Amino acid sequence: MAKDPKSGEAGGMPGTPDPALVGKLAIANRILYAQGVVDGFGHASVRHDKSPEHFLLARNMAPALVRREDIVTFDLDGTALDAGGRRVYLERFIHGEIYRARPDVQAIVHSHSPSVIPFGVTSQPLRPVFHMSGFLGSGTAHFDIRDVAGDTDMLISNATLGVALADALGERSCVLMRGHGSTVVGSSLEQVIYRAIYAEVNARLQLNAIGLGDVTYLNEGEAAKAAATNDTQVGRVWELWSKQVGPID
Amino acid sequence: MAKDPKSGEAGGMPGTPDPALVGKLAIANRILYAQGVVDGFGHASVRHDKSPEHFLLARNMAPALVRREDIVTFDLDGTALDAGGRRVYLERFIHGEIYRARPDVQAIVHSHSPSVIPFGVTSQPLRPVFHMSGFLGSGTAHFDIRDVAGDTDMLISNATLGVALADALGERSCVLMRGHGSTVVGSSLEQVIYRAIYAEVNARLQLNAIGLGDVTYLNEGEAAKAAATNDTQVGRVWELWSKQVGPID
Amino acid sequence: MAKDPKSGEAGGMPGTPDPALVGKLAIANRILYAQGVVDGFGHASVRHDKSPEHFLLARNMAPALVRREDIVTFDLDGTALDAGGRRVYLERFIHGEIYRARPDVQAIVHSHSPSVIPFGVTSQPLRPVFHMSGFLGSGTAHFDIRDVAGDTDMLISNATLGVALADALGERSCVLMRGHGSTVVGSSLEQVIYRAIYAEVNARLQLNAIGLGDVTYLNEGEAAKAAATNDTQVGRVWELWSKQVGPID
Amino acid sequence: MAKDPKSGEAGGMPGTPDPALVGKLAIANRILYAQGVVDGFGHASVRHDKSPEHFLLARNMAPALVRREDIVTFDLDGTALDAGGRRVYLERFIHGEIYRARPDVQAIVHSHSPSVIPFGVTSQPLRPVFHMSGFLGSGTAHFDIRDVAGDTDMLISNATLGVALADALGERSCVLMRGHGSTVVGSSLEQVIYRAIYAEVNARLQLNAIGLGDVTYLNEGEAAKAAATNDTQVGRVWELWSKQVGPID
Repeated sequence: MAKDPKSGEAGGMPGTPDPALVGKLAIANRILYAQGVVDGFGHASVRHDKSPEHFLLARNMAPALVRREDIVTFDLDGTALDAGGRRVYLERFIHGEIYRARPDVQAIVHSHSPSVIPFGVTSQPLRPVFHMSGFLGSGTAHFDIRDVAGDTDMLISNATLGVALADALGERSCVLMRGHGSTVVGSSLEQVIYRAIYAEVNARLQLNAIGLGDVTYLNEGEAAKAAATNDTQVGRVWELWSKQVGPID
Repeated sequence: MAKDPKSGEAGGMPGTPDPALVGKLAIANRILYAQGVVDGFGHASVRHDKSPEHFLLARNMAPALVRREDIVTFDLDGTALDAGGRRVYLERFIHGEIYRARPDVQAIVHSHSPSVIPFGVTSQPLRPVFHMSGFLGSGTAHFDIRDVAGDTDMLISNATLGVALADALGERSCVLMRGHGSTVVGSSLEQVIYRAIYAEVNARLQLNAIGLGDVTYLNEGEAAKAAATNDTQVGRVWELWSKQVGPID
Repeated sequence: MAKDPKSGEAGGMPGTPDPALVGKLAIANRILYAQGVVDGFGHASVRHDKSPEHFLLARNMAPALVRREDIVTFDLDGTALDAGGRRVYLERFIHGEIYRARPDVQAIVHSHSPSVIPFGVTSQPLRPVFHMSGFLGSGTAHFDIRDVAGDTDMLISNATLGVALADALGERSCVLMRGHGSTVVGSSLEQVIYRAIYAEVNARLQLNAIGLGDVTYLNEGEAAKAAATNDTQVGRVWELWSKQVGPID
Repeated sequence: MAKDPKSGEAGGMPGTPDPALVGKLAIANRILYAQGVVDGFGHASVRHDKSPEHFLLARNMAPALVRREDIVTFDLDGTALDAGGRRVYLERFIHGEIYRARPDVQAIVHSHSPSVIPFGVTSQPLRPVFHMSGFLGSGTAHFDIRDVAGDTDMLISNATLGVALADALGERSCVLMRGHGSTVVGSSLEQVIYRAIYAEVNARLQLNAIGLGDVTYLNEGEAAKAAATNDTQVGRVWELWSKQVGPID
């Protein structure tokens, strides 16, 4: 198993991740594709169940094709521990640095979810149009890579940029990335998939509502209460979505 | 069979519902999914054929997966008579209180139908853009839960809220629920499915038409006449839609 | 075989239509569904190959389900000659009266094609955004049933209304029907299917273009030349569309 | 094998193209259909691997149906060398004249990609909304056939018009064609398919973003850097897209 020297020895190799979690991450990738959140790009990760200093993420590939064996373990520096020479995502630093900054976060989705992107390039936050997106709270965070690094290829391709993105995210659940996409965080894989899907749905609703007139969004109290209730219902949609993607191997 | 103490003894247990009606309700759930009216959330109910004081509704699950055996009998207080320990929808009170307030209503759909939601958050009623949605009459009712209950999780999660929603609906066929979704009623399961689908279609048309200029809607006379004619044609689309969802067991 | 007394004896029974034409009409119905021009409603007809005083049209049913045996022969008064007791479309008068008024027309599609409807309710004509819709010429005709018949159920449910619609159509290829849908005519079944599909495509393009700024449409000369060229290419898409709908029996 | 006299003898017959390239071109056609860039119209070509003076393009047919045996070799004048009497595309001159003017171009897609067309008729350039469309650089070129040829059928149906289009394209990657569609060029078949797809995606994003307010596009530096990075990731989506279209024979 290839060990990248950058990983150092301090962290060491965590134990083998729970096979059920690995399978669930493969399914999560496919759900994101089936629901139109990702196309050939974008990725989902989950924190390692045996080590908070590691996370699981597919090798560099289209999410729709991910199988169990494509899941790689990374440390928070974004160093792959068992890639075995396979290419990894250029933007694994999104995951590592958010897991480092946000101990409450257990799972992350980065995507170019299409309805969300127009908000990121016009500096309009996403705000919760309906109860399903109560997790948006009082609105999304905004990140412009140009502010921290000048002209780039827009990607979070190193740890410094990952830290800047995590800073912009702060305590929110979603950060819009100007000219790029968005990143959503959650306290479980099921929850973050739910959030990534309903961020996209909310964006589409918000685009249409803005065209009709002044919009009454959920206020902070409503958003918090709705989010709490929805968390009790996530299993219902996970059952549907995972059935729809079929067997992963 | 689990009996919730809240159901009291007054209503008693109605007879076994007509198996054909139970099957039709399962099909109705799947049609709503296939036609994009519901996603993993939303529900359809029908009044019990042997007791106007009861209604049939699936247990808490994604509509696309409903089978005959998932259909539960409720009384108008929203108490499940034969859930057998299975979870039920938090918002069953939508159904119970509307059946109580509207003896003419035989079937109800509650959904987060996407094109409809922007209207509910901008206080614009849906109005009939074409004859297929003549049932919208002179426009939809509007309900804002904040007016009656302050900051909530937006859900109709008890009888008091159900009564308030039924009040807002009044004698109309559709009520928009701010920050949540909408509820459509009808005199049969086939009719309410038709209405839920064409409320969504009409909303999409109305969104686009508003972008083009001043819209000439059907007037009240036209709407009433069109609705009466369409009621004679519902069988045609029910045949199509039910064939498309295939076998339910 | 049921003979409607209204059909009289003057016209008489035409010969059996060409089986290939009957099959093509069934395919045409299914193409319209597959391409999103019709849903459970709408219909396509073709003039009888052995009698210009008759036309072929399915019995009252969803277009997506039409088979050869569902095709009925009508005279221009809208009287079914061989319905055998089966229900027929309420709006067969659209077809009969346009065939009577326009000897050049060999095939007709009536639909509620969704992107087209917003134009009909705002009195904006469809105009050719690109060469594929050159058949729109200098724009579509407009028909408001209220102008000729006051408050109705919006349907062309008798010969008088059919005549009024044919008058509004004039020499154009498409007439928008306020609060209802549209009707497209052509010189062959392949051509009218092409036109019905590209009227819908054009409407979507036009909706989006209007949102961007002043639109340069094809002028009349361009439209006429483009339409003539496209007529030589219709076989290409008919091959694709008919393959996609698969066998009809 | 039919030899068109216009092809002359100077160019002569190039060698047989690489079968892998022929297969890839068939797949490319089907990807464009599956991804909504082409419908029954539009075409993709690739420069001949054994002769820069020739290119490969399907015979006149719907892209979704192209098989290996439908690929024909053309010289830069647009003369088919091995069509064997089969019809060829009216607009093959788009390909020939751009290959002549742009030695760097190895593959070309011409389409009526729907979200792009509204830009061409309002003279708004496409500009890169996100990193995936960095190849759009500082914006698309614009071509109005009326400026060079008066009223036409809008098609690039001869070499003179092909030259005019190539002039309008200049050194850019995409030219919008007023009232018609667009043409995208690339340095490989994989890259041009990627570009054609993301030109369409970008157009949809840009339409929505313009509706929200002032848009911050990628600047030229960002666009160039993003384009360079994306070129290293094209294999990932090509794998996905080619798997999805399945076997081509």
